[in-house]
Amino acid sequence: MPLPVRDPILLTPGPLTTSLATKAAMLRDWGSWDAAFNAVTASMRGKLGQIVNAGDTHVCVPLQGSGTFAVEAAVNTLVPRDGHLLVLVNGAYGKRMARLAQMMGVRTSVFETAEDAPTTPADVERLLTADASITHVGLIHCETSTGIENPLAAIAAVIARHGRALIVDAMSSFGALPIDAQRIPFDALVAASGKCVEGPPGMGFVFVRRTVLEQAAGRSTSLAMDLHDQWVYMEKTTQWRFTPPTHVVVALDAALTQFADAGGQPARYARYRANCDTLLAGLGELGLVSFLPPAIQAPIIVTVHAPPDPRFAFKEFYERVRDRGFVLYPGKLTAVETFRVGCIGAITPADLRAAVHAMGDALDAMGVRDRAPRIGSAAPATVAA
Amino acid sequence: MPLPVRDPILLTPGPLTTSLATKAAMLRDWGSWDAAFNAVTASMRGKLGQIVNAGDTHVCVPLQGSGTFAVEAAVNTLVPRDGHLLVLVNGAYGKRMARLAQMMGVRTSVFETAEDAPTTPADVERLLTADASITHVGLIHCETSTGIENPLAAIAAVIARHGRALIVDAMSSFGALPIDAQRIPFDALVAASGKCVEGPPGMGFVFVRRTVLEQAAGRSTSLAMDLHDQWVYMEKTTQWRFTPPTHVVVALDAALTQFADAGGQPARYARYRANCDTLLAGLGELGLVSFLPPAIQAPIIVTVHAPPDPRFAFKEFYERVRDRGFVLYPGKLTAVETFRVGCIGAITPADLRAAVHAMGDALDAMGVRDRAPRIGSAAPATVAA
Repeated sequence: MPLPVRDPILLTPGPLTTSLATKAAMLRDWGSWDAAFNAVTASMRGKLGQIVNAGDTHVCVPLQGSGTFAVEAAVNTLVPRDGHLLVLVNGAYGKRMARLAQMMGVRTSVFETAEDAPTTPADVERLLTADASITHVGLIHCETSTGIENPLAAIAAVIARHGRALIVDAMSSFGALPIDAQRIPFDALVAASGKCVEGPPGMGFVFVRRTVLEQAAGRSTSLAMDLHDQWVYMEKTTQWRFTPPTHVVVALDAALTQFADAGGQPARYARYRANCDTLLAGLGELGLVSFLPPAIQAPIIVTVHAPPDPRFAFKEFYERVRDRGFVLYPGKLTAVETFRVGCIGAITPADLRAAVHAMGDALDAMGVRDRAPRIGSAAPATVAA
Repeated sequence: MPLPVRDPILLTPGPLTTSLATKAAMLRDWGSWDAAFNAVTASMRGKLGQIVNAGDTHVCVPLQGSGTFAVEAAVNTLVPRDGHLLVLVNGAYGKRMARLAQMMGVRTSVFETAEDAPTTPADVERLLTADASITHVGLIHCETSTGIENPLAAIAAVIARHGRALIVDAMSSFGALPIDAQRIPFDALVAASGKCVEGPPGMGFVFVRRTVLEQAAGRSTSLAMDLHDQWVYMEKTTQWRFTPPTHVVVALDAALTQFADAGGQPARYARYRANCDTLLAGLGELGLVSFLPPAIQAPIIVTVHAPPDPRFAFKEFYERVRDRGFVLYPGKLTAVETFRVGCIGAITPADLRAAVHAMGDALDAMGVRDRAPRIGSAAPATVAA
C-alpha cells in the first residue's frame, strides 16, 4: 500500500497519535532474556509507578495484550472465588467489566446510572450499607463511551470506610488526570500503554496494593492473566513470564521519558485541557452540541450529538474529515446518535483547531445546516442525586 | 541509553531479529476503527491462512498478547467443561499447556516422555484406546525447550481415527515446517507473530476448524480469551473486539508480504535448514555437542551441552558472545546443563558462521578447553518405542 503524503491525526481514544521519537524506538530488536531489555522493563515499571505515586504500597505489574486483558487479570487475580463484585456502570466499559467477571464465575452485581450521570458517593454509601456481602467494587474512572468522569476520590473514600476493596479501570484517565495512590485508597488500578501516556497499544498494566497481591497466590483461574504469578516471576528474574511485546515496551519507555521531560501529569493534563477547550469552543462555532455538561466532561474524549439534518450521515462525514487529515471516532451510545472526538495523543490545540475547520468544511460540503439536536431528548442534566 | 554501533543478532527462539522493512512498518499510527487498518487486519489473516492452506475449513483468529495467551484461548474456547484434555509432554511448553488447562478447571491428563524422546503415534494409539473419556489431545509440534520435533502428521492421523480433537501448539514451527490443514486433521493450531514469520512479538493467532468454532459460543470462561466472540465480532465488523496492537499487526503484515515474496514456507525452511546445518557443523568444529540426534532436531533452535570444563560459566560466555554481536539463549532442561542457539529470524548462514566464530573466540578467551560432555549422561538415543 503506498504511503499517504502524511499520516492523518488520530482524534480517537487510543490507539492515538504518538511522537516520532516513540515510534522510532521500535526500530530495534531486543532479546527478551537480555539484561539490556530487562533494564528497560524495570525503567518502564518505575516510571509508571511514579505517575501514581505508587511508593512502597503499590507495585506495577505489566501484562501483554489490550487494556481489557489487564482489567480481566485484576478481577481474576484479586477477587476470591467466594467474593462479590459490585460494578458501577454508566457506559460500555463498566458493562464490560461486569461481563468478564460473570464469565469467570465471580458473583457480580451491577449498579447502572444513565450515560450522562456519574455514580455518586451517596449511591455507593447506600449500596455498601445495604449489602454486606459485597467484597469488591469496580469503577470506571473515565468512561470512554461518553467521556464522563466519575468522582474517583470521593467514591474510593466511601469504599475504604466500609472496608471493601476497589478496582479502578483508569484506562483513559491515567497520566492525564491526577491519581495519587497515597491519597486515594485502591487495591488495583488498571491502564494501558496506548492511552494518555502516548505509547503504542499492546500492553496493559495494573498497580496493585502489595499486601493484597501477596495474598493472591493460586487464586487466578487463568495462567496468562495471573498477576500474582507475573509479578513474582518478574521480581525474581527481572524478566517477563511469557514473551513480552518488546517493541511496544521499549516505545512505551521512550514515551514515558518524554512524559516526564514535558512536565509529567500536570503538563499532560494542561495540554489535553487546552485541546478539549479548543475543541468545545470550535464545536460551538460550528453549531454542534456536545453530549455532556462541562462539569462532568473529562478532557479525554468529547461525545458530540449528530446533527439532526437528514443530509448528515456519519460514514460520509468521517470519510470527508479523514480525507482532510483527521480520524474521528464513532459514537457508542444506544439511545442517541453521536460521534466522538478525542483530545489525547501527541497533538496540540493547533491540531484541534485545524480539525474543527475540517469538520466545518465537511459539513458544508455535505450541505448539513441543521446541526443542533432538539432540546429534551436524552441530553444533559439528568444527573441523579 | 546510547544506541550501540549496531544491534546484536538475536539467536533466540523469539523475539528474533526482524528485517528493517518489518520494523519500519511500525513508524505509522493507525486508527483501530479505520477502514485502512481493518484492511491490513484482513490481509494479515488471509496471508496467515495461506501458509497452512486453511481453505474454507479453518479460520484464522488473531489474539492480542503472547503465544501462550492464544494457547490458553484455544483450550478455553474449544474444550467443553465436561471435556478431558490429554497433553503430550516432552518439555516446558507441554507442561505449560497442561498447567493452564488445569487452572481453568478442565480435566487434564499428561503423558510425558523424556526431553529427547518424541511422542510416537503408537503412544497416542495406546492412550486413546485405553481411555475413551479423552475428548481432546494437546501436542507441541516443536518443543522450544530443546528444539525437538514431534511427528505431527502421524499423531494427528491417529487422533482423527479415534474421533478425538487435536489442539496443536505450533508456536516455533509455523511458517518454517510444512503444515497443511487439508492433510493434517486438527481442530486448532496456534502460533504467534514473533516467531518464524519474523514479525515483532505481541500477537498470537489460532487456526480453528470453522464447524468447531461455530459450536463454541458461550463456552469460554474468559472474555478476553473467547476466540468465538473474537471471531464473530471480527467477521461482523472487520474490526478487533478490543484495542489491537496496531503497530505489531501492521509490521506482521509487512513481514508476511516479505515471507511470500521470498518463496513462502519452503524457502523459509530452506534458509533455516541452512542456518541450522551451518551451526551444527560449526559446533562440531568447536568441540561442542548438541543435545538432540539429527533425526529429531528441528531447524529452529539447537540445544547444546555446556562444556564440562570448570572454566565454563554460561553467564560469562553469554556476555562475551553478546559483546561480539550475538545474543544466545539459556538452556531450559533440568537434568543436564545446556544452552541454546536459535536458527530463526531474518538471518542467514553467514550470520550463523560468524556466531560460531564468536563462540569459539569466547571459549578461547575463557580458557575453556574441555568442551564435550561425558558419554552416557542424559545424552541422545533414549528414544522410546
